[in-house]
Amino acid sequence: MPTPLLSAGQVQSRLKQLKGWSHPGNAITKTLKLKDFVHAMGFVNSVALLAEGMDHHPDIDIRWNKVTLTLSTHSAGGLTENDFKLAKAIDGL
Amino acid sequence: MPTPLLSAGQVQSRLKQLKGWSHPGNAITKTLKLKDFVHAMGFVNSVALLAEGMDHHPDIDIRWNKVTLTLSTHSAGGLTENDFKLAKAIDGL
Repeated sequence: MPTPLLSAGQVQSRLKQLKGWSHPGNAITKTLKLKDFVHAMGFVNSVALLAEGMDHHPDIDIRWNKVTLTLSTHSAGGLTENDFKLAKAIDGL
Repeated sequence: MPTPLLSAGQVQSRLKQLKGWSHPGNAITKTLKLKDFVHAMGFVNSVALLAEGMDHHPDIDIRWNKVTLTLSTHSAGGLTENDFKLAKAIDGL
């Protein structure tokens, strides 16, 4: 059974529990500024391990020391509980 | 002394020595499709080690098994020899 889409109200209440994520369109996104490229890659690899473990993968954009993560459940056509589980785990890194 | 910008002719001749790169605007870019996310991350980490060793860092976009690399020398305002050196090294991975 596919994970169900969250309602707008459910998205808003879950967003409040996250740190620094915004909600454009059908996704949530966060940009982090690290010390330099090496630290950015360290962070990206930590995110990648979490993502692979949860079988839920963010879009990842690396611009030297800046990393932008974008989460959405493409198979469901929008945001589901899985996006917020991963976002919360990323916030905990 | 900053690395000098390449002329349009120099860019074209260097592009011919690369595999699968296109040349939009002031950059060169290549998208690779790997087996899955784990293989994409392995490739990205190999690129990151090359980039850090050359102190020249591509923009890296990861979309599950697809990796897009974009190279330009921002300090010079366009393409320099450094972009093609890194692109060639990436092609050799």
